[in-house]
Amino acid sequence: MTKTAEELKDRYQQLKTKYDEYTAHPLNLNIKRGIPSKEQLDLSVPMLGLLSSPEDFLSQGTVDIRNYGELTGFYEARKLFSELLETEIDEVLIGGNSSLSLMYLVILSKLFTRKMGSSFKEPIKFLCPSPGYDRHFAMTENLGIEMIPIALTENGPDMDEVKKLVANDPTIKGIWCVPTYSNPTGITYSDEVVDQLASMETKDADFMILWDNAYLVHHLTNDKHAAKNLLTACKAAGNPDRAWMFCSTSKITFPGAGVAALGASKKNIALVAKELSYQTIGFDKINQMQHVKFLKDKKQVAQHMEKHAIILKPKFELINQKLTDYFAGKEGLTWTEPKGGYFVHLTTEKGCATEIVEALAKIGVAVTEAGATYPYGNNPMDNSIRLAPTPVSLVDLDAAMDAICLCIEYVSVQKRLSL
Amino acid sequence: MTKTAEELKDRYQQLKTKYDEYTAHPLNLNIKRGIPSKEQLDLSVPMLGLLSSPEDFLSQGTVDIRNYGELTGFYEARKLFSELLETEIDEVLIGGNSSLSLMYLVILSKLFTRKMGSSFKEPIKFLCPSPGYDRHFAMTENLGIEMIPIALTENGPDMDEVKKLVANDPTIKGIWCVPTYSNPTGITYSDEVVDQLASMETKDADFMILWDNAYLVHHLTNDKHAAKNLLTACKAAGNPDRAWMFCSTSKITFPGAGVAALGASKKNIALVAKELSYQTIGFDKINQMQHVKFLKDKKQVAQHMEKHAIILKPKFELINQKLTDYFAGKEGLTWTEPKGGYFVHLTTEKGCATEIVEALAKIGVAVTEAGATYPYGNNPMDNSIRLAPTPVSLVDLDAAMDAICLCIEYVSVQKRLSL
Repeated sequence: MTKTAEELKDRYQQLKTKYDEYTAHPLNLNIKRGIPSKEQLDLSVPMLGLLSSPEDFLSQGTVDIRNYGELTGFYEARKLFSELLETEIDEVLIGGNSSLSLMYLVILSKLFTRKMGSSFKEPIKFLCPSPGYDRHFAMTENLGIEMIPIALTENGPDMDEVKKLVANDPTIKGIWCVPTYSNPTGITYSDEVVDQLASMETKDADFMILWDNAYLVHHLTNDKHAAKNLLTACKAAGNPDRAWMFCSTSKITFPGAGVAALGASKKNIALVAKELSYQTIGFDKINQMQHVKFLKDKKQVAQHMEKHAIILKPKFELINQKLTDYFAGKEGLTWTEPKGGYFVHLTTEKGCATEIVEALAKIGVAVTEAGATYPYGNNPMDNSIRLAPTPVSLVDLDAAMDAICLCIEYVSVQKRLSL
Repeated sequence: MTKTAEELKDRYQQLKTKYDEYTAHPLNLNIKRGIPSKEQLDLSVPMLGLLSSPEDFLSQGTVDIRNYGELTGFYEARKLFSELLETEIDEVLIGGNSSLSLMYLVILSKLFTRKMGSSFKEPIKFLCPSPGYDRHFAMTENLGIEMIPIALTENGPDMDEVKKLVANDPTIKGIWCVPTYSNPTGITYSDEVVDQLASMETKDADFMILWDNAYLVHHLTNDKHAAKNLLTACKAAGNPDRAWMFCSTSKITFPGAGVAALGASKKNIALVAKELSYQTIGFDKINQMQHVKFLKDKKQVAQHMEKHAIILKPKFELINQKLTDYFAGKEGLTWTEPKGGYFVHLTTEKGCATEIVEALAKIGVAVTEAGATYPYGNNPMDNSIRLAPTPVSLVDLDAAMDAICLCIEYVSVQKRLSL
């Protein structure tokens, strides 16, 4: 046994002692999901008192938004979201409180309607830049769509791989993208990647880019990132029907009662509206109107998001500080310093992530399952951990980070010692 | 030409003169859809100001309903709707603002999930008591499900026909029912019919009764009708998973922003919740909480519905009076006098309904398309017209009824004269 190995063994004993203390006195902390804190929720409570006088219920002075109708959303709601999504007013469809539901609706409308019943029998594949959003992957798997993992770089999906695949395989019918402050790595797609996605040759003429812009205005700093507009890029490339852009106010107003929207070509909006007309007479327009009165326009949204940033920024700074203090200059861990969004992503040594998450769970710190951000929950490198610091207080986050740093080193040393 | 024929010809000229006057000065009235009036919408505006203090956002004192979660609805919302649907609290799932969407979700969950992809290739059939709700039929057709019309009697579907069909054909997988104040005939299913539906032998073990109780508390008089509870009857018959009950507050609070609910066995709720979990993190819980605070319980709902009845009853009375004045003692038209719901149904002479609706359209009175309440829009008798009087004022309804009476006689006389 070399000296280094002896040192490593000593270190392991120190770490084990600390870990055993946690085992004896476990924590009860959860930073598993991207959930706004109570303080953030309080920011939007004034929205709920904005509708009272009769004219508050009128769209364009005539349409009573309390009643049935306006399947794609009323004018003022479409105007607000067309500003956020940077589209024409008739290139948006306003949904209920869930952008996930709109994504589901779009996939159904395109691939699983009665008329396309035959495609249900054929294999259908989606490209899944990874790590990515677990709910995208869960939906895709549940629909029986085969998922092909694609490496996610600093600038977006590995476009060489993407272009090669879509050019040759007609059963690849879509790709999932979180273009701005990606979940979980926080990267924003480069203009070049957006242009390539928009213009690339696809064997399937109906290829869909599912563009989940969940964090489009969710900046943490003044260094504001935003992916180039996909619909505009697709139009310029002559592929206007390839772009399916989604956003919601789940993390602007209320996760439990936001408004979601779809941005797409007029032809695509008409296609989805037609399918939707068999499922509902219309989404909740009173909530849409509350959002219109409260958020007003893109500028007001930006001002509102500054308030979120004030609450969130210290949490992300704390994580960075803690990780720097513990791991700077050492090998074995890299982490992201996102300029927006909801997550910090840790890249551990290979084969360690699952054990680290398990070690944390045993001492009462819940973080996202290690494989969850990969298709089928399978990260062959087993080196990815997502931290979602927003729901907890700074005090709790501080405690969680101590435990996280410890467990990362503890598992890594254990591995190196082959214990 | 007999004297009677001469008289008929004279009458025709009188009617034509009157009709031509309308043609010269057309009306602009719409009684096409079951839409609440502005006066009704105003009844629920106080609901929108009920959430303000921090504890208003807590379910059971702990769960913040502004945030993500509570896929099947939070406790107090499930309690309220379990009272309306007469189920246990864990036998309900609270949806968004659309019961139609819940019906779609249920059909998808049962028949069109990936695991059941094979059934997409087989023929699937639903029984459709007719006349019925056009949106049920449109959804069914769009899903590629074959519709079999079933005669709707005073007591519900023709059960001899229903029982014969479901006992022998395994591809018949469901039946649509509007059990209380049926759309459009206003009938309420008898206890015997409910018991037969619950207990009948079905070749398909998973046979579904889609029980759209859209008008369950929508009484117009003190003679309150309500179909027997289907889930209870199905449990008693040993078929607990056959019952799929729906209701919503679309016509209690706001059509554009109500809350819908599903009542079913725990097993069925779990099945639907599982499928739903791939589509959304949860429905709008702030709107659910507003409803909880405003509607409180079944008794409060009943009191609230009395207010609707005060507004609606005179409209239904006016229709009955107008039709009585014009047609009493004559052949050629019968009509319903519903004790609740949203429609009056006219049975015209055979082969006349489409022409009457067209004649009305030409003079600016929009009523529901004559075939719309039948599967595929096809009523072989062409004798059914639905009136939806709720959206218009009494003055406008009075004017519409004059035109309707005229057109009914005008078209009938024309037919008899074979003009």
